[in-house]
Amino acid sequence: MDLSHVAWTTEDRAGIYFAEPGAAPRASTVIYDSSASAMSRIAPGMIDWRAVLDDTRWFHTSGITPALSESAAATTIEALATAKNMGITVSYDLNYRGKLWSTDKARAFQEPMMQHVDVLIATEEDTRVVFGIGARAGDDTFIRVDTEVYAEVARRLQERFGVRAVAITLRENPLVWRNTWSALVYADGELHCAPRYEVEIVDRIGAGDAFSAGLIFAFLRNNDWNGAVRYGTALSALKHTVPGDFSQATLAEVEQVLAGGSLRVKR
Amino acid sequence: MDLSHVAWTTEDRAGIYFAEPGAAPRASTVIYDSSASAMSRIAPGMIDWRAVLDDTRWFHTSGITPALSESAAATTIEALATAKNMGITVSYDLNYRGKLWSTDKARAFQEPMMQHVDVLIATEEDTRVVFGIGARAGDDTFIRVDTEVYAEVARRLQERFGVRAVAITLRENPLVWRNTWSALVYADGELHCAPRYEVEIVDRIGAGDAFSAGLIFAFLRNNDWNGAVRYGTALSALKHTVPGDFSQATLAEVEQVLAGGSLRVKR
Amino acid sequence: MDLSHVAWTTEDRAGIYFAEPGAAPRASTVIYDSSASAMSRIAPGMIDWRAVLDDTRWFHTSGITPALSESAAATTIEALATAKNMGITVSYDLNYRGKLWSTDKARAFQEPMMQHVDVLIATEEDTRVVFGIGARAGDDTFIRVDTEVYAEVARRLQERFGVRAVAITLRENPLVWRNTWSALVYADGELHCAPRYEVEIVDRIGAGDAFSAGLIFAFLRNNDWNGAVRYGTALSALKHTVPGDFSQATLAEVEQVLAGGSLRVKR
Amino acid sequence: MDLSHVAWTTEDRAGIYFAEPGAAPRASTVIYDSSASAMSRIAPGMIDWRAVLDDTRWFHTSGITPALSESAAATTIEALATAKNMGITVSYDLNYRGKLWSTDKARAFQEPMMQHVDVLIATEEDTRVVFGIGARAGDDTFIRVDTEVYAEVARRLQERFGVRAVAITLRENPLVWRNTWSALVYADGELHCAPRYEVEIVDRIGAGDAFSAGLIFAFLRNNDWNGAVRYGTALSALKHTVPGDFSQATLAEVEQVLAGGSLRVKR
Amino acid sequence: MDLSHVAWTTEDRAGIYFAEPGAAPRASTVIYDSSASAMSRIAPGMIDWRAVLDDTRWFHTSGITPALSESAAATTIEALATAKNMGITVSYDLNYRGKLWSTDKARAFQEPMMQHVDVLIATEEDTRVVFGIGARAGDDTFIRVDTEVYAEVARRLQERFGVRAVAITLRENPLVWRNTWSALVYADGELHCAPRYEVEIVDRIGAGDAFSAGLIFAFLRNNDWNGAVRYGTALSALKHTVPGDFSQATLAEVEQVLAGGSLRVKR
Amino acid sequence: MDLSHVAWTTEDRAGIYFAEPGAAPRASTVIYDSSASAMSRIAPGMIDWRAVLDDTRWFHTSGITPALSESAAATTIEALATAKNMGITVSYDLNYRGKLWSTDKARAFQEPMMQHVDVLIATEEDTRVVFGIGARAGDDTFIRVDTEVYAEVARRLQERFGVRAVAITLRENPLVWRNTWSALVYADGELHCAPRYEVEIVDRIGAGDAFSAGLIFAFLRNNDWNGAVRYGTALSALKHTVPGDFSQATLAEVEQVLAGGSLRVKR
Repeated sequence: MDLSHVAWTTEDRAGIYFAEPGAAPRASTVIYDSSASAMSRIAPGMIDWRAVLDDTRWFHTSGITPALSESAAATTIEALATAKNMGITVSYDLNYRGKLWSTDKARAFQEPMMQHVDVLIATEEDTRVVFGIGARAGDDTFIRVDTEVYAEVARRLQERFGVRAVAITLRENPLVWRNTWSALVYADGELHCAPRYEVEIVDRIGAGDAFSAGLIFAFLRNNDWNGAVRYGTALSALKHTVPGDFSQATLAEVEQVLAGGSLRVKR
Repeated sequence: MDLSHVAWTTEDRAGIYFAEPGAAPRASTVIYDSSASAMSRIAPGMIDWRAVLDDTRWFHTSGITPALSESAAATTIEALATAKNMGITVSYDLNYRGKLWSTDKARAFQEPMMQHVDVLIATEEDTRVVFGIGARAGDDTFIRVDTEVYAEVARRLQERFGVRAVAITLRENPLVWRNTWSALVYADGELHCAPRYEVEIVDRIGAGDAFSAGLIFAFLRNNDWNGAVRYGTALSALKHTVPGDFSQATLAEVEQVLAGGSLRVKR
Repeated sequence: MDLSHVAWTTEDRAGIYFAEPGAAPRASTVIYDSSASAMSRIAPGMIDWRAVLDDTRWFHTSGITPALSESAAATTIEALATAKNMGITVSYDLNYRGKLWSTDKARAFQEPMMQHVDVLIATEEDTRVVFGIGARAGDDTFIRVDTEVYAEVARRLQERFGVRAVAITLRENPLVWRNTWSALVYADGELHCAPRYEVEIVDRIGAGDAFSAGLIFAFLRNNDWNGAVRYGTALSALKHTVPGDFSQATLAEVEQVLAGGSLRVKR
Repeated sequence: MDLSHVAWTTEDRAGIYFAEPGAAPRASTVIYDSSASAMSRIAPGMIDWRAVLDDTRWFHTSGITPALSESAAATTIEALATAKNMGITVSYDLNYRGKLWSTDKARAFQEPMMQHVDVLIATEEDTRVVFGIGARAGDDTFIRVDTEVYAEVARRLQERFGVRAVAITLRENPLVWRNTWSALVYADGELHCAPRYEVEIVDRIGAGDAFSAGLIFAFLRNNDWNGAVRYGTALSALKHTVPGDFSQATLAEVEQVLAGGSLRVKR
Repeated sequence: MDLSHVAWTTEDRAGIYFAEPGAAPRASTVIYDSSASAMSRIAPGMIDWRAVLDDTRWFHTSGITPALSESAAATTIEALATAKNMGITVSYDLNYRGKLWSTDKARAFQEPMMQHVDVLIATEEDTRVVFGIGARAGDDTFIRVDTEVYAEVARRLQERFGVRAVAITLRENPLVWRNTWSALVYADGELHCAPRYEVEIVDRIGAGDAFSAGLIFAFLRNNDWNGAVRYGTALSALKHTVPGDFSQATLAEVEQVLAGGSLRVKR
Repeated sequence: MDLSHVAWTTEDRAGIYFAEPGAAPRASTVIYDSSASAMSRIAPGMIDWRAVLDDTRWFHTSGITPALSESAAATTIEALATAKNMGITVSYDLNYRGKLWSTDKARAFQEPMMQHVDVLIATEEDTRVVFGIGARAGDDTFIRVDTEVYAEVARRLQERFGVRAVAITLRENPLVWRNTWSALVYADGELHCAPRYEVEIVDRIGAGDAFSAGLIFAFLRNNDWNGAVRYGTALSALKHTVPGDFSQATLAEVEQVLAGGSLRVKR
């Protein structure tokens, strides 16, 4: 990994979060301790985005960054605009965090950003909360998540923002420790759906990031949205099964899941 | 908490129990080590119940106390009678423990007690085991628990003992670590049912006590059985999700469950 | 336990295995580290089987032994043939391990062994993998396992090898940590089916061995296949609920499961 | 505990620290994450010290507070001055933290504060680091800590700042997990020394605070510096033996240590 | 182990104890919960000691049994007298527990018992506490334990009670988790001393019992007090290094310690 | 790290070992399970040492490799001879493992190897066990290790084998969990001694390898034996304080130890 463009500081703290795992009917909670974090101090002009993005095919960021501070929001726009301008594919994971900013603020800041975005990634929940496009009100227990509904949501988001592709992850949440997990991509007028996985959750934090990583990796490899959404979904399904907030799955493990193998002990 | 009326002793031991958690199809077990416990030595005359209960609105006790010894049973009656006599609302959680006394003894001792009880609280299982009023024989796997059946059970218990209210907790037990949990109250000719919660169990010991606590707290606050059974059920559903045998839930957590929130990570 | 016939060695290592527990959709895996193990060095002539089996009613072994090495396979045949010859009941748990040998090799070695076997024990998966008799191809996720299909499989295996009885364990595997578990025996033209248990898995390794142990124990006690398959299934269902690879269940615990008790806390 | 004067905020974060336990020859380390903490935002005028201190006999604070920010330092002076003015006994634990401010800054801020202080509490290390009065340079491994030397240090600090009493804790630090621990007080021209305890360390964080607590508690009870330094030392020696950063010792446990009991198992 | 003479009961509870590990300067503590235990209900006549002791060479018991109840004390005497009468070697571990009975009671009960005892085993502390024969008063921190002093103590005990041998274990207790451990036997006018071991304590509970076991085992094997005290001391030194209250050491491990091996890693 | 010359195999197993931590007076033990390991199958001709060592300044190996098998021993000689021949500095850590080969075999194989070695590294124990040059017999408890004695041992080893430098690590082993640790180098007629560190042991496995690593790293950096032995000793002293068998210390941590810092909490 190339860390040469990281702007290090000895002044500010690293943002941290505290996660309290729940159990049905008690939801898990996350408390952000990001105030005065180094990332919240980022400001336009601090990073030479043209240098950072030189020779880059894809730029990805998420809605947590602009939620940290106004200067972080401005820097996010700066980065997105520069990348778009350089012809780089730009993906954006909406990643709404209600404990960091209000829905009003999130909408006001992020709607204009969408002009710089090629691939919008969101959860089944955030599309409605932030952009008002989602399953009908009252369906917010997410015990059953209807793919059809979200295909339509993806279509409407694509139309509204004119992005190239919209990816929506689909989590059914009847319990805390057992969910289903799937995703779809609407791109170029076509819908691509991944299988729906039963996931026995060890640690679900980082599943969204793993989805984005898998989607981008697979699309860059094969230029194929169908393969990309399936790869991203399998990788992020696996993420749920390991502790820690980033995926440790190997290519072979993802492929085993994609091949639809059984849950027998492999021996 | 006011401990000023506790009768302390340096002579006798504290009763303890050993809990062995199971996993389907192996049931959990509890072994009581309560012989020669201080509580088993309690005897009529030892406590000045009029002083203890002075200025009190509600008195609650459970069927574990009379199961400990004959003197404890006599003291239970003494307390219930005094409370009733003073015009205090008396609730009694049947809490049958087959390892402490036989069903015959439990029935013989507790039937006469019912004249002093205003609110009888019981599980779906104990009403039949102790008083012979329950779901029909053979339905004792409790994999499906029918609310209608227990509404009728509550009605019959109310008639038989002339108590003001009967509360029955309803546990479906298809697995050890995942149950459903609900409750109903039959009072003043009306039935009040709480929602049924899926519970991912961390430690179920103490759920019954949490139900009683929530029921009493909410009824004293609003004088409303419907709210009370809902509050008690939510509080005790939350109890299942934390280790230890007493509830640590905050008012806000109970209200979140009552509001029917999703199991999304709160962040 | 009589260890007097064990052939000890100070030269060779004990075979070990490494188990990595999964979580849906990541399967558990086992890595065998059995090369150069003492057991792989066993060779015909090393054990005086007639002395070992003197005064013995039943001889049981499994398909892991012949998978270790050619000399171990030859010794397995030597033992089976001797036992059969002595009129001892011989049971054989197919126990196919794809990481130890190929299906071709497993079939080539084990088909001729079947002439010495009275009771063939196998999983729903191994019958097809090794002998080509199983549920139809494509049904290998084992999320639903149809008893009828496996009754037929047992019948065909019985016919093909002329064994006295065929026992098949039936695992439904929709998740890693929650399965159903059952078994059937086809013997003397009759089918005997155990109940299907929901199992909350603590450690499933050793469940197959516990099934064999329970089947043999109960059959030797009562000479009754129906009781034997029920006993073996209950014992092995319990094995899933304790850590470690051998059963610690007492007779009383097995009988409680056989009696179909509820999953209430016993107290 | 009376929390009615606490100024709560929903804006700022709680300061936290990360402790990494060492083992000889690797020292333990603590990283403070206190920037933007609520406490660092405290400012003069925010607290009505006269109201807070009304009817109070003793006011204690430590050198960590002024190290957090300039406004916190100003507020510390405000509090000390008010307390002194009201005739309240003021104790101040120097508690130097080199990761929060420089020695120059610590000296510049704290020397003027000393006019408001009655009882100065410090470690054998901080007296020299902050005020330049300590064991001679080069003696900073603290493997042997000479009481005589620190009696002299206490005397000089008392003279320099005109405080009523100086308490110095004395830690010998030849290893990370086994230290000796003692303390002395110089007051009214007299020296009072506690015994030196061998401590098997479970968690040493909070030992200094436990010393202050014990010293103040015992002095308020008996108005006797000799008893106070002995009580504070025993209480803080016990603090080392329990996890967490505050003492859980009972009066009886402190008295057992003060009575010089053996380390036999009490049974 | 032959359990055929155990008098089982389903009525009474097993005595238990709670151990709280300390750390210098906080001593470890043990709380006994033995009231109403089955053992405390033992009474003369309940056990047929002649049958139990038939064909037995050695009978060993300890001072915890008579401390449990008067009937247990009477039964202890009954057993000792019978054994002595049958010509069996009788050893008695004084094992004084101040939380079970007073020193006065312990002395009054146990002095008469000594007429039935051949081998008295005691700690350096209990000889003085119970029989008033020990190191001089004030030496009760046991940070240094002088072998000479205890040789004299053993001699005086031998004279006073006319026992064949007196064994005293010698623990230096400067810290909770690191002690020295040794023992001596005075028998037939001769003193036999074991080496003194530095012990890094994992769990010291059961060390006394391990000493008795080793002493008896080795004496029965070789009829040699010098070897016996050395073997018992080595075995019990090893006991300190494993969790749980009984020794798991092998003969080979004891012999390695007896051979004075280094603490290098054996590889 | 460059892995391009590793000869991978899918045939053979990785050697493993089992470590059982002791506590005084029970020594820790290690059991090797290296038979049939991939490394034991290495054979002359399998590795192109000239290619591997091209452009290399230093080659280091240890006496565990030749202990694995005769072919591994032959390959060790092949590697050493090639490196020596290419003018590369060769270091060899004697690392005697009595559970892998006898002292006779170890001496017979390794004495001739010494002609290819520039820097011989050994423990205070192995020099005598393998080459018969060490502290006098009977001093094998290693509770006190005299630097003078080992300076002489180093000198004699240097003379006997004509190596450029001899490094000896010096461990005092009075307890299992607390040792002292030091080292010396005799080179070019001069003796270089590191300080002696008290080490509170978390995991001592890998300390020898960390010493070699530090010695080589520091010597390559500054060409100075005095600095090298000090650096190697500090790095390996730190290794004792972390779990796992390789050092995780940073340069800054080693330098802090070299600077002789105190064991105060750094905060």
